[in-house]
Amino acid sequence: MTLRFGLLGAGRIGKVHAKAVSGNPKAKLVAVADAMAPAAQAIADQYGCDVRSIEAILAAKDIDAVVICTPTDTHADLIEKFTKAGKAVFCEKPIDLSLDRVKACLAVVRANKGTLMVGFNRRFDPHFMAVRAEIDKGSIGAVEMVTITSRDPGAPPVDYIKRSGGIFRDMTIHDFDMARFLLGEEITEVSAMAAVLVDPAIGAAGDSDSVQVMLKTATGKMAVISNSRRATYGYDQRIEVHGSRGVVSAENQRPVSIEVANGSGYTRPPLHDFFMTRYTEAYAAEIAAFIETIAGGTAAAPSGEDGLLALALAEAALLSVKEGRVVRVAEVTA
Amino acid sequence: MTLRFGLLGAGRIGKVHAKAVSGNPKAKLVAVADAMAPAAQAIADQYGCDVRSIEAILAAKDIDAVVICTPTDTHADLIEKFTKAGKAVFCEKPIDLSLDRVKACLAVVRANKGTLMVGFNRRFDPHFMAVRAEIDKGSIGAVEMVTITSRDPGAPPVDYIKRSGGIFRDMTIHDFDMARFLLGEEITEVSAMAAVLVDPAIGAAGDSDSVQVMLKTATGKMAVISNSRRATYGYDQRIEVHGSRGVVSAENQRPVSIEVANGSGYTRPPLHDFFMTRYTEAYAAEIAAFIETIAGGTAAAPSGEDGLLALALAEAALLSVKEGRVVRVAEVTA
Amino acid sequence: MTLRFGLLGAGRIGKVHAKAVSGNPKAKLVAVADAMAPAAQAIADQYGCDVRSIEAILAAKDIDAVVICTPTDTHADLIEKFTKAGKAVFCEKPIDLSLDRVKACLAVVRANKGTLMVGFNRRFDPHFMAVRAEIDKGSIGAVEMVTITSRDPGAPPVDYIKRSGGIFRDMTIHDFDMARFLLGEEITEVSAMAAVLVDPAIGAAGDSDSVQVMLKTATGKMAVISNSRRATYGYDQRIEVHGSRGVVSAENQRPVSIEVANGSGYTRPPLHDFFMTRYTEAYAAEIAAFIETIAGGTAAAPSGEDGLLALALAEAALLSVKEGRVVRVAEVTA
Amino acid sequence: MTLRFGLLGAGRIGKVHAKAVSGNPKAKLVAVADAMAPAAQAIADQYGCDVRSIEAILAAKDIDAVVICTPTDTHADLIEKFTKAGKAVFCEKPIDLSLDRVKACLAVVRANKGTLMVGFNRRFDPHFMAVRAEIDKGSIGAVEMVTITSRDPGAPPVDYIKRSGGIFRDMTIHDFDMARFLLGEEITEVSAMAAVLVDPAIGAAGDSDSVQVMLKTATGKMAVISNSRRATYGYDQRIEVHGSRGVVSAENQRPVSIEVANGSGYTRPPLHDFFMTRYTEAYAAEIAAFIETIAGGTAAAPSGEDGLLALALAEAALLSVKEGRVVRVAEVTA
Repeated sequence: MTLRFGLLGAGRIGKVHAKAVSGNPKAKLVAVADAMAPAAQAIADQYGCDVRSIEAILAAKDIDAVVICTPTDTHADLIEKFTKAGKAVFCEKPIDLSLDRVKACLAVVRANKGTLMVGFNRRFDPHFMAVRAEIDKGSIGAVEMVTITSRDPGAPPVDYIKRSGGIFRDMTIHDFDMARFLLGEEITEVSAMAAVLVDPAIGAAGDSDSVQVMLKTATGKMAVISNSRRATYGYDQRIEVHGSRGVVSAENQRPVSIEVANGSGYTRPPLHDFFMTRYTEAYAAEIAAFIETIAGGTAAAPSGEDGLLALALAEAALLSVKEGRVVRVAEVTA
Repeated sequence: MTLRFGLLGAGRIGKVHAKAVSGNPKAKLVAVADAMAPAAQAIADQYGCDVRSIEAILAAKDIDAVVICTPTDTHADLIEKFTKAGKAVFCEKPIDLSLDRVKACLAVVRANKGTLMVGFNRRFDPHFMAVRAEIDKGSIGAVEMVTITSRDPGAPPVDYIKRSGGIFRDMTIHDFDMARFLLGEEITEVSAMAAVLVDPAIGAAGDSDSVQVMLKTATGKMAVISNSRRATYGYDQRIEVHGSRGVVSAENQRPVSIEVANGSGYTRPPLHDFFMTRYTEAYAAEIAAFIETIAGGTAAAPSGEDGLLALALAEAALLSVKEGRVVRVAEVTA
Repeated sequence: MTLRFGLLGAGRIGKVHAKAVSGNPKAKLVAVADAMAPAAQAIADQYGCDVRSIEAILAAKDIDAVVICTPTDTHADLIEKFTKAGKAVFCEKPIDLSLDRVKACLAVVRANKGTLMVGFNRRFDPHFMAVRAEIDKGSIGAVEMVTITSRDPGAPPVDYIKRSGGIFRDMTIHDFDMARFLLGEEITEVSAMAAVLVDPAIGAAGDSDSVQVMLKTATGKMAVISNSRRATYGYDQRIEVHGSRGVVSAENQRPVSIEVANGSGYTRPPLHDFFMTRYTEAYAAEIAAFIETIAGGTAAAPSGEDGLLALALAEAALLSVKEGRVVRVAEVTA
Repeated sequence: MTLRFGLLGAGRIGKVHAKAVSGNPKAKLVAVADAMAPAAQAIADQYGCDVRSIEAILAAKDIDAVVICTPTDTHADLIEKFTKAGKAVFCEKPIDLSLDRVKACLAVVRANKGTLMVGFNRRFDPHFMAVRAEIDKGSIGAVEMVTITSRDPGAPPVDYIKRSGGIFRDMTIHDFDMARFLLGEEITEVSAMAAVLVDPAIGAAGDSDSVQVMLKTATGKMAVISNSRRATYGYDQRIEVHGSRGVVSAENQRPVSIEVANGSGYTRPPLHDFFMTRYTEAYAAEIAAFIETIAGGTAAAPSGEDGLLALALAEAALLSVKEGRVVRVAEVTA
């Protein structure tokens, strides 16, 4: 069986997914849509697929599933439309910046018995999957403290930040999902600190560029997240899970692992330059998992609910910074 | 010049200091005092010094300086007495569990123009000193986020915890001092989370065994501390400082750095078993710095004020946990 | 332009190349041939190409280039036939076990102005390429001593060894090529030691399973190679180049780089299980380089002559072991 | 019991031993002798011992043992004299540059039932001891291939090289002993290659500065040694032992293990600057072992015979380079 895909959005992340879909032997990229015709055409040329309008893809008989990579404010509408049309949906995070809108959208998906998977690609990174596998097989005993370090090489344009919902919603959201993935039980409390250390223009836009967050579950398991919008040494992505019987960690990845030594010391190259190269395997594995989900009729994971909960944690973190206090997740999800 | 030392307290940490003083070519261990005669005698036998009473050491003409390793509740009194007697004082942390008592004690030291150095040994670890040296020479630009991971191999007896003032005052206090040492400016806000994950008896005693703390300075620099009372893999002591132009870190230390590989993987030995072996060089360097301070007539560092401020951060962390909110340091020091 | 490929041989390494060719956007796998019909059919099914006879591929108008993965004793004949037929040839090493036969074959290639590239895949490993790039840009000054450690996870069947020409010709040959690649000048002297430590059956077949080789160039640059047919910890592939101003090295690679620590120590997973997973990127890059060579009309590298010289080093090593002396390469190539 | 020491020679290595003896609670440095009076006086001042003549130490009733750190050509005579005088002898390697002279000296030691330990300090390095301990407990199965990388930061003065017997006798000799220590059985064959790559003046003096050596035992176990007189990155000292069930290695050591990362990559500091700092613990442990040997009446290890055999391997390596062939150790020891 080959799953026939439509791709909605031909921007940066759209290209990543076009490559992942095209490289999967069980998938076929049939069509791409984008408001910017040249962007869609470039993908069509590279992978030998059609350029169509979103409406045409929605109506197409030869398309089974879509990957939504359009701007965030269109996600929820598209999920609803394509779900109603009986197509499986893979959507980039976040579903929407509004928790209420997300809830409404998920209700539509449920009502239509749709398949919705959300793009928390890091769950599919082979190193992070191996960390989770060690937890699952009991190598470290009971999980106690998760540490996530996540720093981008450089800040996005301030224009992007104005639309993205801010650092907690566009960047930390991946770490919130990872914390949930590794803690193995729901987070109930959030406390965050935020500062503007990288670029005053980010502060002027009402956002922060350096944040740290503490999370806690009902049984007292904890996680801590450290984010910065700038890391001169590359895309810094580390996780560590301390448990009752040991600790497991995934170290940073670099394109080549060589070392040059001289009188100045021993030097290894910088890390990957960003997510496109760091998470290449994860993007491929994510699409493969989506295909298996559809083929097997199993529940999608990460699900729409996972998307909702990560967004709720972002909301709670924002409130925590604003009010200088621990926020119970129930306050924002109620 | 040889500085002549009296050692007050011949317990675990007393032995560490006896060794450090005896191994220093500019120091001579003249006498040791302890309520437990056999403990004092053991040190006297090993290093060829006298056993004397505390009073005798206080009155002694042949003793220039003392190292205070007695129980915490005697520290402040001893500092005052020996300062008044004109002897230089090196005191193990904390000066006292009460901020007010510490302030009063420091006032006495100041009034007598005494020399008081507090035992934050980690500042003298060669690896951590090298981290600080990199910051000082600008290798990482402006300091932005400090990450301190500090886990003990195993929890102390619950009896000890009942007297110690709890995890923030007896364990995290070292990390508070290290955060101050590395941030390079005063901490103004504290937020902490705490849990009992290791041993319910610790919870029953009113303390926590797993904590994480976020700290912030007036300009927005931040630090995060992660503590556990138990680490199966040894004494986990790591620091990392992220700055505007780079990051510097000190990795864990182990007694021997070999690696054995077979079908199960590549294995390096566990870390040091505890502070006595991990910080051997730091204890020696700390005493050497104390001697230089006296010889040079310079200001002691870490000072009594450093001891006070670390304790204040512990106090603030406790209050933060209790009230579920960010605590301003000024609230506890006022 | 798309280069149309025929694949000769559908065994283990044939599958590796089928994947590399199919994954390259500038290549198309048109047909596969193998004496074992099911093996050819499996590749045809997976990649959507024809099954044809070698003769049919030789005569085909729709095939520009072939990848030769048949048994070694057919290589030279096939190279000659396909070169005469005007097709570009990529051939797995070695060209032949006989130096004279290789020389004759290369003469035919030259006479027909054919394109011949030999499969020393390791030159295309990104880590080893990065090592070479550091040398080229002068990071370590003049190359002085190359160290190559190369150990297979397990020995091949004794039947294979009987046909392969022995460890120097089927295994060390890669390291001979790598030594030449890194030394940057021709090797003039070879000294080798060999032993049977892994499997007495290998010794009974007249071969060794553990060897070490020293190499030297006319100006005194040296290399040392250490080989074993068995490594419990995976496919051990390391290179190090020491020069007048520094050293550069490429460390081993593993599928996932996580670490699990507990009371037994800190453990990272074993290395890759063999060349198919270790050198995935190298096989893809090798085919890409072959395609660029043809497209650009540039000289193939590694060339047939590179294949000849690596084989000559194997010959010299065998003679060195036999006679217990340093062998000049000129002795075997004359 | 306290062992009373005389130190013969107050040069660079004499200072190292003065520190080791003085720092040992079971030893007392009583006197030091040196032809250069100021050198002896400096040690006497630092450690509070006498300056005496060698003859006075020989006759002294208050000295039980001597550490010989005088020039190599005096070693054998001094060993004989002090052994006859009933004093235990610790002698820096080599005993003499002439195998015959060494044999004669050892005969005197045996005849007088003397205690002679030779200064192969590396056997006492905690990391190398841990490697050996893993072998002894079977972690890697049967030893098969030993790899020793040993590079000095910089070449000694050519004057020193003229007296030292050359690189095999003054530098590789440590690696020969280490190879014997790790192989666990006697070496029977030696093959070496040598070049002048670092300093032409060394070549002009008749020596080499870059060498590699292959060793083999009767059962086929092998070792390879790589030496250079110059390493810009510090004192490079690595060992690796590959066995039937695994591999064990000891990595390089550096004074501080920090890492600084920025846009140029991740940099750790250079290695130790030379043996005085790299092997501080080994020198202390070596003297402690010597004391225990005397206290326990056990056989000294490394013994005079160990010194003889390492020298024989150096001799064999020289002959191998000269004649371009494998040399059987029996050829030089016969």
